[in-house]
Amino acid sequence: MGPAQFDQVSVIKKSNVYFDGKCVSHTVLFADGSKKTIGVILPSTLTFNTGAPERMEIISGECQVTRPGKATEQFRSGQSFFVDGNSSFEIQALSVVDYVCHFEG
Amino acid sequence: MGPAQFDQVSVIKKSNVYFDGKCVSHTVLFADGSKKTIGVILPSTLTFNTGAPERMEIISGECQVTRPGKATEQFRSGQSFFVDGNSSFEIQALSVVDYVCHFEG
Repeated sequence: MGPAQFDQVSVIKKSNVYFDGKCVSHTVLFADGSKKTIGVILPSTLTFNTGAPERMEIISGECQVTRPGKATEQFRSGQSFFVDGNSSFEIQALSVVDYVCHFEG
Repeated sequence: MGPAQFDQVSVIKKSNVYFDGKCVSHTVLFADGSKKTIGVILPSTLTFNTGAPERMEIISGECQVTRPGKATEQFRSGQSFFVDGNSSFEIQALSVVDYVCHFEG
């Protein structure tokens, strides 16, 4: 498990709300100009589209993830999964899932 | 309206989830040791208890707030309201409401 917080960052006060609040995140900006989002997914099954490639790091909770052309896999706290750019993934949050979305593009 | 982001801060990756996700926040830590939370309330009516006195700054959206012994008041983006410590307040989010909670104690 990585550190519990990001230091020396900026954070945008206004949240990002998806699927009527089933997923909520805040955007974190880094000194090098990159950004990540920290978010939570409530127990539900949601499909997200990607622009840039992403690495979804699970901070807490457990989920099942299905990506195009891949078998469904289960991920939990401390694990990550990659999603291609201009693609999508279905995530079933088996509990409340906290994540960090790392934009890899 | 204040700046849209906090700079030079730390942010805790794991979210704070209240009322089955009707309210979600992230904790922001400042160099002086103080903390604030940035959060969102989905359209709903919720009652929060306070420990320290709080200033709730509305970042976006509109809400109606009832505090003990006070008439219900409406607040919107750019406005703030104070809540005594060891007290409570009822908030009806008329839309999705983003806020910053400033702990005043």
